[in-house]
Parts: sequence; C-alpha cells; structure tokens
Amino acid sequence: MKHIDIVHVLKQEPSLHEITVRGWVRSFRSNRFIALNDGSTINNIQCVVDFENFEEETLKNITTGAAIEVSGVLVESQGQGQNVEIQVSKVEVLGIADPEEVKLTILSPKRHSLEKLREQAHLRVRTNTFGAVMRLRSKLSFAVHEYFQKNGFYYMHTPIITGSDAEGAGEMFKVSALDTKNPPLDDHGNVNYKEDFFEKETNLTVSGQLEAETYAMGLGKVYTFGPTFRAENSNTSRHLAEFWMIEPEVAFNNLADNMDLAEDFIKYVIKYAIENCQDDLEFLENRLIQEDKSKPVAERQEMTLREKLHFVVDNNFKRVSYTEAIDILKNSKPNKKKKFNYIIEEWGADLQSEHERFLVEKHFKCPVILFDYPATIKAFYMRLNEDEKTVRAMDVLFPGIGEIVGGSQREERYDVLKKKMKDMDISEEELYWYLDLRKFGTCTHSGFGLGFERLVLFVTGMGNIRDVIPYPRSPGNAEF
Amino acid sequence: MKHIDIVHVLKQEPSLHEITVRGWVRSFRSNRFIALNDGSTINNIQCVVDFENFEEETLKNITTGAAIEVSGVLVESQGQGQNVEIQVSKVEVLGIADPEEVKLTILSPKRHSLEKLREQAHLRVRTNTFGAVMRLRSKLSFAVHEYFQKNGFYYMHTPIITGSDAEGAGEMFKVSALDTKNPPLDDHGNVNYKEDFFEKETNLTVSGQLEAETYAMGLGKVYTFGPTFRAENSNTSRHLAEFWMIEPEVAFNNLADNMDLAEDFIKYVIKYAIENCQDDLEFLENRLIQEDKSKPVAERQEMTLREKLHFVVDNNFKRVSYTEAIDILKNSKPNKKKKFNYIIEEWGADLQSEHERFLVEKHFKCPVILFDYPATIKAFYMRLNEDEKTVRAMDVLFPGIGEIVGGSQREERYDVLKKKMKDMDISEEELYWYLDLRKFGTCTHSGFGLGFERLVLFVTGMGNIRDVIPYPRSPGNAEF
Repeated sequence: MKHIDIVHVLKQEPSLHEITVRGWVRSFRSNRFIALNDGSTINNIQCVVDFENFEEETLKNITTGAAIEVSGVLVESQGQGQNVEIQVSKVEVLGIADPEEVKLTILSPKRHSLEKLREQAHLRVRTNTFGAVMRLRSKLSFAVHEYFQKNGFYYMHTPIITGSDAEGAGEMFKVSALDTKNPPLDDHGNVNYKEDFFEKETNLTVSGQLEAETYAMGLGKVYTFGPTFRAENSNTSRHLAEFWMIEPEVAFNNLADNMDLAEDFIKYVIKYAIENCQDDLEFLENRLIQEDKSKPVAERQEMTLREKLHFVVDNNFKRVSYTEAIDILKNSKPNKKKKFNYIIEEWGADLQSEHERFLVEKHFKCPVILFDYPATIKAFYMRLNEDEKTVRAMDVLFPGIGEIVGGSQREERYDVLKKKMKDMDISEEELYWYLDLRKFGTCTHSGFGLGFERLVLFVTGMGNIRDVIPYPRSPGNAEF
Repeated sequence: MKHIDIVHVLKQEPSLHEITVRGWVRSFRSNRFIALNDGSTINNIQCVVDFENFEEETLKNITTGAAIEVSGVLVESQGQGQNVEIQVSKVEVLGIADPEEVKLTILSPKRHSLEKLREQAHLRVRTNTFGAVMRLRSKLSFAVHEYFQKNGFYYMHTPIITGSDAEGAGEMFKVSALDTKNPPLDDHGNVNYKEDFFEKETNLTVSGQLEAETYAMGLGKVYTFGPTFRAENSNTSRHLAEFWMIEPEVAFNNLADNMDLAEDFIKYVIKYAIENCQDDLEFLENRLIQEDKSKPVAERQEMTLREKLHFVVDNNFKRVSYTEAIDILKNSKPNKKKKFNYIIEEWGADLQSEHERFLVEKHFKCPVILFDYPATIKAFYMRLNEDEKTVRAMDVLFPGIGEIVGGSQREERYDVLKKKMKDMDISEEELYWYLDLRKFGTCTHSGFGLGFERLVLFVTGMGNIRDVIPYPRSPGNAEF
C-alpha cells in the first residue's frame, strides 16, 4: 500500500480507512507506543501496538533508529500533544538498528553536545534540532527564490571556477587538474598553467557580483544564489570556507533603492519562515529557552526566537550614515571607558564587530543599515560620492549576527572606475569586460550580497554557523 | 519618477497618466521610433519621439546600445506587433554607446555567429536569443524548486569541496591553498596535504548523491540543485567542465517510484516553461524555423520547438529494460548493416550515444526510460537484482539530447554493499558514513541526477550546451 507522509497524517481526521506510514522509530515505550518520524515534520505519529497480536521477534526489532512500516486505522488519540494516533494492525521492520551499535552514536536517546553531533554529521539530521534547522534552511531557500521571481528578477548561475582574482574579497582556493607533485614548469621555472585544464590559473569564486552586473545590464534585475569560497584561516562560529551567497543586482537602482530592496527582501523571507515553519520554530524556540535556563539571568535573551523574528519583520531598519555612526561610537561609554578592543578615535576607522554590535544591540536596538563609508576601506567598484571621500556602500547589521548584508551602488562612470582600478592596482586588461559595461549604455545600478548561512543562523537561533549547513567546510575540516 | 518594467507597460491600456521607462535602445528609426528593451521581456516598447521638440544633442546620442530614460503617455499603437506605444514627452540619455565602438562588438545590428557571441559572453545576454535563453533558464530553475517544494521535498546544499573521491563519476579537479610552485613535501617526497587548508587532499564534487542519501534517511525526501564538476577533456557540444545538477533522493522509493518521479518532474518543469515563457519560446521557435530554412529538407525538424515540448508533456515515457533494448538494437537495420560505430553483439555491451539516439529518435520516437542495466557497467551503489546480473539503474533518454537523467534504486543491504565496494576497490574506511546508512534503519531508497543544462538545451532548442549557461567552463576556457 502507498504510504502517506506523517505531516499529512497528523492533519487528518480519525477514519476507519486503513493507512500506511513509513519512518524511523524515535522511541518504543511499554512495548506499546511507537513514536514514528519520517522527516516530513518534526512531529512524530504515535503508533499503538497491541503486543499480544505481534510476534516477539518483530517487537524486539522495533528499537530507536529502526526503519519500519506501519499500517492501521487513524483514531482519536488518548494521549497528550497529538490529535490522532494509529491503531496498528500490521508492522514490518524494514531496517534494524542494533541497540548496541546505536549506543555508540548520536542516535542513542540522550543529550549530545553540538560538537559531538558535528562529528557524526551524516546522522545528525535525524535529531529533532537538525531536522528542524535543515527544514528551515530549505524553506528559507525557497522563500529567496520566490521573492525574486515574484518581483521580476531572473536567477543566474555565475561561474564557480574563475580565471579572475581581481575582486579581492578574500583569499582564494586554487583549482587545478595538474599533477601537484610534478607540475609542468615554464622557462622561468614557474608552474606552467598553459598546460592546465583551463590553460590558465584558476580559482574558486569569492563572489558572483561582477558577472551579475553584466547580466543586470541585459536582463535588468538578476540574482545569484550559489556557493562562494574563502581560503581564510578563520576558525570562528561565524565563518565558513564554503558558504552560499545571494547576490541581487539591479539596473537603475540607486543606493536608497538598494536599501529598500535589502530590507524588503529580508523581511519577506523571515515572514515566510514564520508562516511556513511554525512547528520547527516552536521547537527551536523552546530549545533556546531551555538553554537559557542554565545561564545567569543577565545573559538570557530578552526576546524569544519568534519575538525576535517578528521584531525584525515589524520594524523599520534604522538607516545611519557612517559619519553619524562614528559620532555615536566616539561618544559612547565603552569607547570613553576604553572597553572596546579598538578605540574609535577618528573618522575613517574601519568598524569592528564590537562596534557594529554596540550600534545594533545597545544603541539602536534594531537592525541597522550603515551607509556612505570612507572610500579607503571599501572595494574599487563602489560609487564615489560627490564629497570624493565616501562611497555609496551599505552594510545591514543584525543583532547577534553582525553584518548580514554588504552592498553598494556601483561606480557607473567609465573614467572614475578606470582611475580607481589604476590607483588600487587592479588589472584593466583582466577586467576589460567589466569596464565594457561602462562603455555601452552604462547606468546607475546597485546590488548586495547576503550570506545565506548568517540568515539561517538568525532565523534558527543556532549559535554556530557550522550547525546550519549540512557538511561545513572550515580549516582542517572537509569530512564527508 | 519611479520607472515601470516594460513587461508590465506592454500589458497596460492606453492612458493619459504619464509613465517612465528605462532601458537600452535596440534601434532608432527615422529619428522618430525608438525600440526600447529593459530585459524584463523579449518585447520592446516603441517610443515615438517628435524630433522637433528635442535637442539635437540628445537625439544624436540615442543610438543602439545606449541607456535612456523615457517619459510620456501610453497610446494605442499605429504600428504592427504591439498594442501600445509611448508618446515621448521627455527623454534623457543615461549612458551613451559610441556607434564606432559598438560596431566592433556583437551589439552592432547585424547577424553574429554563436561562436562570436560566445567570445563576448559579457554582452551576449543583451541579444534577443540569449535574453530569451537566460530568462528561460531562470524560469526552469524556479520550476525545479517549486515542483519539489510543493511535493514535500527539502532542498539541501551538498558540499562542493569534498575530501572523498570515491564516487568515481568522473575525473576531478583538485582544490588547494598550497603554494603550487613549492608545495610542502612529506618524508616520502609526496605533497604533504596535512599542511593544506583542509589538512587533506580535496577535490571539487562530481555529485551530491551520497550526501543526499544521508539526508533522505532523516528528512525522507530531499533534492539538491548545485554545481558539479568534471575535469574531462570532452570538447563536445554536450559537455561542460562546470554544470548544474539536480539530484532528488527519496526514502522508501523503489525503481518504479523513481521512474514515476523523474517523468512527473520533467513534465512539470517543461509545462511550467510552456505556460510562463510564451514570448521567449515563440522567439526561439522562429529562430529554429529560420535556421531550418538553410538546411536540406531531409534534415529539417519534424516538429516545431513548442510541438516538441508538448509532445513530451502529453505522452508517456516508454519504459524499456536494457535486455529488451539490446534485442531491439541487435536486430536493428543500422546494426545489421554495420552503420553503428559500435556494433551491438551481445548482452552486456555499454550503450553509446548512437544507440540511445536510435532507440529514442528512430525506434520509439518518444522519450525512453531504460532500466535494469548489467551490474558490470554501473556504479557500486546501485541495487543488485535477484538475477545477480543486473542492477536497478535507469536512464531517461531524450530526442536530440541523449541521456538527460541517470538514476537508480540504491543498494540498501549492508553486506551486499560492503562486498560490492570491496570487489570494486572502493575504500570502506573513507565511506564508513555511507555504510552507516545501511546499519541504522536502512530502507529501500532511490534517486536520480538530471543535468540542468541538458534540460535547458532541450527546452530552448539551442544546439550547444555552452550557449545555455552564462559563462561556460570547458577545456581551455575559464574566461570572465
């Protein structure tokens, strides 16, 4: 008989019509109550077995982690927390899970640390926490696509392997098909990349922005959603060597339009999660409440997870110029009392995470968009303001997360861009195609990048970015 | 004034309300008719200028490729092919396109070969053909997500950088952050990957299947949609070194379910394109009709592009076992007359593209699903049939494209899989986590991979896979 996903079964009314479900045993109490989960929802269906009617051999194999098929009728549940349960007429063990072996894994029914779960990343999606996180990740991904498609953006796949290393967003991984031990050398004794697969040196992309700009100049509104890479030795809870980035790029948008887009977009996807992932969010919220109980009162969250999400959706992001932000920071208590690791002394300073968090968490107490940064601390492609000191850059800062979006209005003037590239030693020859955009029908345009994992961190309330991607890549770690 | 996307303007009724559009000039006829395109649709809006009311300097700069802003009222069009046009009251040139420079590019108004367009891939999206192809690519991508999300699948991001090279789907690219010229060596004089970023040798993934299986065992139904790589020197019109793959994986699905899923899925996304990309499909269809006119009658397409798409959506895919297919091929004319390059002599032969195309294009004249292939020519993870000779593999074959989907029911039996890995010399130590899936609640499960670019090729009717991805990667080519 065709089986039904448990998420649908749980919404059905009791009926005499027999149904079949398949899934994995979460627990089997009193030789009578099977809690069965199939991943379609965080909720289990309770399957009630009248043990006298079943073979002992079968019952013996219904243990935590086993895959089983259950048939029966759906009846009103006597227990708490569920409306319906299955009165089992037939049960078949599809795949056993030897309790002695299970004991050695994170599938065993006790609390495991997140570090332990990370070591068994191939099994952790079977736990409530990771099931919830990964279902949310999936729904958020879809919300991203839905938002852009509804608003007339075209999705584009920018290249992963790139021959250009001009963008300078970070250290790059090299890609090669050469024999690493004995690579061919040229006349100067350097590795001869002319003999490599692409006949040149290639890297993994750090951003699809420059290519996205080429498409915005043809299709108008585009977005990317793909993997990007940083070969940086950042062993933190907020950095990954491989992560997914979303980069919209819009012809004719100025910086104000860009800020509007970022805010509207973020609110849309968070709202989508609130509306479509209630059960998983409730679980993750309770997880955080439990976690908080072991903390000193002063360190506990002021808002629950869903309150925090609603807060973002319901309030305007505060827009503050870099210059205003510097004034606020200079006059702030932690600056005056030298509590910051980096004391803000003058305009032009690069903001550190501690400053961003002060602005967002202490001063404004809401998401903040900082804009018009000093040109000296930002990338070559950002549009120079009339003051010739600042560029039309923007960063969206989130509580607990810090920078979640970085974007800008792009320099659309051929001569200005060319001079900037020269000043910053960026090869005009290599980026001729990027300059071409300013030669043929150039126009005001803007875009931003959003690190998808940071968004998932925020929405799930998880603390470590390695726990919101299935198989995290970080220094020393490329397991699975 | 806020501008409106041209796709929306073209659907509006004439009105005295002034509107603004922005876009790029496709042509400017008789100092009077501007054809303006903004990428939101293949269709241009005609903007009618009363040249006596505008400065000569402005009019001079309205040339092919220039970016302009136009304001005016929408009136009924006198010309053919459009319902409305803009009676221009104001025009501003945002970015010029020097006709002398344009002449040197593919933006110049004459026919350019696809090869030439490929060399200027940063500009080609501004042509009708590539605008249409890339809009279709975007819509097809969304259809992929919508299909799976509607059907309760969870999207997962499988790792791009992988420490495993066990799958054997093809040659891999190496990823490294080491100094390639002077890499650190170990005691044996080999490159010491312990000093590399991930402290081991790493590659670019060839498939996310094995990781997707781990998630199917927790979430039930999952799919991937991400880039995959092959370092193979295949300089053909059907191969890329970097391409996007879709890989659903479903717990409890057997091979018949898997075939149903593949067929249902493909029909859904093609239907989505038919319904949501009418203008672009019409353009591409006419393009093919024009192209056909220069061919001998015998080589012309029997069906138009949209007829071909409808044919796939409206007909059942023919399901044929490998054994039946061999019989058909052995007795076929081209085999008997030795017209095939590879003559089919006996059961066990690997099918070549020419055989697949014969089955699909000559014999069955519809999409075909071949299944139950000899174990010896298929991957280690495919489920062995009771005959112990064949495995539960399936390939979906499309006219003109060949293999568009490859999939299988997976070997879920621990002992059988272990033996198979041993026989095929696949490291048990490296894939311990894959074997674990067969230890803890194993179950029947199946999945497949669909090369996204092959699907886009089919739907757009383009002839070369390099023309359906923005920046193709192939031997000797990693430009942009």
